[in-house]
Amino acid sequence: MKAIRIVIIGGVAGGASAAARARRHSESARITVIERGPDVSFANCGLPYHIGGEIEDRGELALQTPESLRQLLNLEVITLTEAIAIDPQARQVTLRSVADGSESVIGYDELILSPGASPLRPPLPGIDHDKILTLRNLQDMDRIKAEVEKVDSVAVIGAGFIGLEMAEQLIRLGKKVSLVELLPQVLPQLDAEVVRPLQRELVAQGVELFLGDGIDGFEDRNGRPAALLKSGRVLETGLVLLSIGVRPESTLGREAGIELGPRGHIRVDAYQRTSAPHVYAVGDVCESPDPLLGGHVAIALGGPANRQGRTAADHIFLGERALPFRGSIGTSIVRVFGKTAGIAGASERRLQTAGLPYRTVTVNGPSHASYFPGAETITLKLLWSPEDGRVLGAQAVGGEGVDKRLDVMATAIHGRMTIDDLVHLEFAYAPPFNSAKDVINTAGFAATNLRDGLLVAVDSLADAEGQPIIDVRPPASAAALPVPGAVNIPLPALRSRLEEIDKSRPVFTVCQMGKTSYFAARILANHGYDARSILGGAHHQAPREGD
Amino acid sequence: MKAIRIVIIGGVAGGASAAARARRHSESARITVIERGPDVSFANCGLPYHIGGEIEDRGELALQTPESLRQLLNLEVITLTEAIAIDPQARQVTLRSVADGSESVIGYDELILSPGASPLRPPLPGIDHDKILTLRNLQDMDRIKAEVEKVDSVAVIGAGFIGLEMAEQLIRLGKKVSLVELLPQVLPQLDAEVVRPLQRELVAQGVELFLGDGIDGFEDRNGRPAALLKSGRVLETGLVLLSIGVRPESTLGREAGIELGPRGHIRVDAYQRTSAPHVYAVGDVCESPDPLLGGHVAIALGGPANRQGRTAADHIFLGERALPFRGSIGTSIVRVFGKTAGIAGASERRLQTAGLPYRTVTVNGPSHASYFPGAETITLKLLWSPEDGRVLGAQAVGGEGVDKRLDVMATAIHGRMTIDDLVHLEFAYAPPFNSAKDVINTAGFAATNLRDGLLVAVDSLADAEGQPIIDVRPPASAAALPVPGAVNIPLPALRSRLEEIDKSRPVFTVCQMGKTSYFAARILANHGYDARSILGGAHHQAPREGD
Repeated sequence: MKAIRIVIIGGVAGGASAAARARRHSESARITVIERGPDVSFANCGLPYHIGGEIEDRGELALQTPESLRQLLNLEVITLTEAIAIDPQARQVTLRSVADGSESVIGYDELILSPGASPLRPPLPGIDHDKILTLRNLQDMDRIKAEVEKVDSVAVIGAGFIGLEMAEQLIRLGKKVSLVELLPQVLPQLDAEVVRPLQRELVAQGVELFLGDGIDGFEDRNGRPAALLKSGRVLETGLVLLSIGVRPESTLGREAGIELGPRGHIRVDAYQRTSAPHVYAVGDVCESPDPLLGGHVAIALGGPANRQGRTAADHIFLGERALPFRGSIGTSIVRVFGKTAGIAGASERRLQTAGLPYRTVTVNGPSHASYFPGAETITLKLLWSPEDGRVLGAQAVGGEGVDKRLDVMATAIHGRMTIDDLVHLEFAYAPPFNSAKDVINTAGFAATNLRDGLLVAVDSLADAEGQPIIDVRPPASAAALPVPGAVNIPLPALRSRLEEIDKSRPVFTVCQMGKTSYFAARILANHGYDARSILGGAHHQAPREGD
Repeated sequence: MKAIRIVIIGGVAGGASAAARARRHSESARITVIERGPDVSFANCGLPYHIGGEIEDRGELALQTPESLRQLLNLEVITLTEAIAIDPQARQVTLRSVADGSESVIGYDELILSPGASPLRPPLPGIDHDKILTLRNLQDMDRIKAEVEKVDSVAVIGAGFIGLEMAEQLIRLGKKVSLVELLPQVLPQLDAEVVRPLQRELVAQGVELFLGDGIDGFEDRNGRPAALLKSGRVLETGLVLLSIGVRPESTLGREAGIELGPRGHIRVDAYQRTSAPHVYAVGDVCESPDPLLGGHVAIALGGPANRQGRTAADHIFLGERALPFRGSIGTSIVRVFGKTAGIAGASERRLQTAGLPYRTVTVNGPSHASYFPGAETITLKLLWSPEDGRVLGAQAVGGEGVDKRLDVMATAIHGRMTIDDLVHLEFAYAPPFNSAKDVINTAGFAATNLRDGLLVAVDSLADAEGQPIIDVRPPASAAALPVPGAVNIPLPALRSRLEEIDKSRPVFTVCQMGKTSYFAARILANHGYDARSILGGAHHQAPREGD
């Protein structure tokens, strides 16, 4: 039998995983990896942390070298070589050397496209200034690291995951950092109120934050770049880092007649097959079936890329006996100094765009037993389907333990679990690690109480504006962080002071974190009031410099 | 309508949760809590940490007082009062004052038993020595804390969760600590090989560990207790702490004719109903339907106790519209100095006892991206059903992030997920929090590879004894922690040195952590060898002082 020939374009993440998995299936397969850059399989998620010095050793980021891949996986690795054309009929790829421009043709039995996505660099005036950089690979990282050393200020444009990580690391280096975001919030993948603590943390750590402000262009000021904001503000700085998103590198696929999605991604099925026979696509370049909302979705993340690569290789060797890729629910996380925030599944914005009905509740809870030192508050926002109670998404913000709650919620979403399931989840409990009731259980309690009518609630104080509000906190807490217009009746006194409350109109209850106000609303409801608990609590009224 | 009267016997954990939930359903219900001790709703899981001083403020442990429960929940709380008889026909409980022995009778519409379990104190010679103490409540804690201050050595008998926490906290106080366990391992809820790192850590921190040794009795030596071990050893010490297990406080139920299980627990259904009408039982006293293995199981943990209390209250008000309790999978965790270990679901021992078929795989992975500072190795043991791939249990040991993996696995078990699901779980990935492939994904990969025949493996080096073993680590690693009898052929050289390996008999591959050996076994298998990877790796050959 003639050995199968597999060609993989792109040797990072998905491409490297596909190569490794293919080799596990077959020692005789001829596997060739084409890489435009000099490196394969580097830790692209670690790049900001080497710039900031938190990862000291650059060598840690080079997970594999062409030589190690040759040795370990018996791969043929061709670096500094670009694939410039695919002929799916002839099953051939045309290659061009980056060094000398010479061209050659390579045949394949199966082709896997893993070219990734490139940072956006919009055609703005002045965009070609040599101090406006983007971060994608080790060479970009080296360049930025060297430039950063020469300046005392950096403007980061775009407050997504990379932008936030860069801002944190640059502050770590003692730079003056400006962070500009077109939308009125950082981390637009998350809902606005969830990221407020991140915004406060950025400001508290000295980041100059410009939200809801775009870029008109750039100018040179004595060799230094200046960003011209839409608001009219001019940011003179030493260096500009652009992190406003990525564009899939799908030109090669498009020119070969392969079907693309509306935003230019290569469309694939659950086995990572493109519209062209024997051509797969994996990683940031592709869009896969969306397991949450239907249709297709492109999510540029390392974990799914690796699994997609594995799936493509499995399908080459096993056909439809391979386990299909189940799609990405976009689980992601970012650390911003002492705060962490992330998401699993759909945000409100995505559900609204998709036109899907949902309900939501936000609860607060301690990261571990509140009586054990070091507990921090975690805020968890839960979204579910009112039809069947299925969990559609979760977002969390806090410090310690945010990652744990996101991973549990990601598991629950993958398992198509419901709000009733969340009530019953049984977590590892000892005081250093958790409470007997995890904040996820609390979210399940609140959600099922909402569904069952035990809890009638609004999200935030804004929803109660102009209405009677009873602040049921102890007088000291109520005085420390007062709720404008609220009457303070501490919970223990509520039953004896019911006559102070007008029964003829709705009444809202508020406390610090949204738990005692639920207790109060139950008391009132059981006494015949139309009582509604304010889920977010007064907690969310904390200073909002970051808004 | 006459207000319903609910009597709850026992005001901690399950009893307190039942009372709170009942009040949410009804303001008019008359709810009475009977508590033998002076305290209600204290943080019993925090007791060891106050003894050790890690929780400084004793007040943190008193979650509620009788007065606060009266105020917040309008409960009638009767402390220092024992329930001594139940008459289910007359719906009456006879009470006796602990202070003066006076008796009274209280009627109920619904009765909830939450008396808990008491520490075992076996009738051994010398057991009544006044320096032999047990830990259950705040008074026990105060007594132990006071006694500990007077001595320089303590013997802890029983190496379960409490015993380990106490040993850790006593070392923290600078005491000489002996830890005695009848079984040949600490933490018998977990499988023996999983807890070895804990045993090593205990020894490294100075705990004198006696495994597989029981107690014949105690003697007095000049006012100090001495424990006489079955091995003949005599432990003279300042104080003995007994933590060898608990016995359900079910006498009251038994005498009322309520059905008990084989180990004396009150048997309940999924709504926490006992065999007597209008009598519920919750918490450590009861055994509930076992969601994993069938039959009934008693698991003494705070989280399930709280949920059971909630379920009983819901059933009182909602009947069968209430959400039934789904049973406990026994998720639990313990910190022992720098190490953490825990379990979710069934151990090998429980599956063997139940006679259920299972398969198992153990994998190692980093707690977060290995290139980011501070990553620690997590060892994850996975058990699943060979029939349908359903996950039956997981155990983890390591440092950072063990709790996270246990909680995810608990969620997967509750969701009846399979090894294929573990492959696809998508976790929150950024270098400070995880790798692109979590150790749980790795376990899913290994388990599905085993099922699909891509991985042929044995658990540990012991399974390969006397057989040809190829050590595929780099020469330096192989020399640092050598595998006796193994031939070192580093993975990169394997393909070119195949002729050194006898094809006529099975060959085993080993590396540090069990990953490279899988790669090597694939190479060999694809070249026609009967190759088997040693899952545990040479890693588990580290010094075993704690064995």
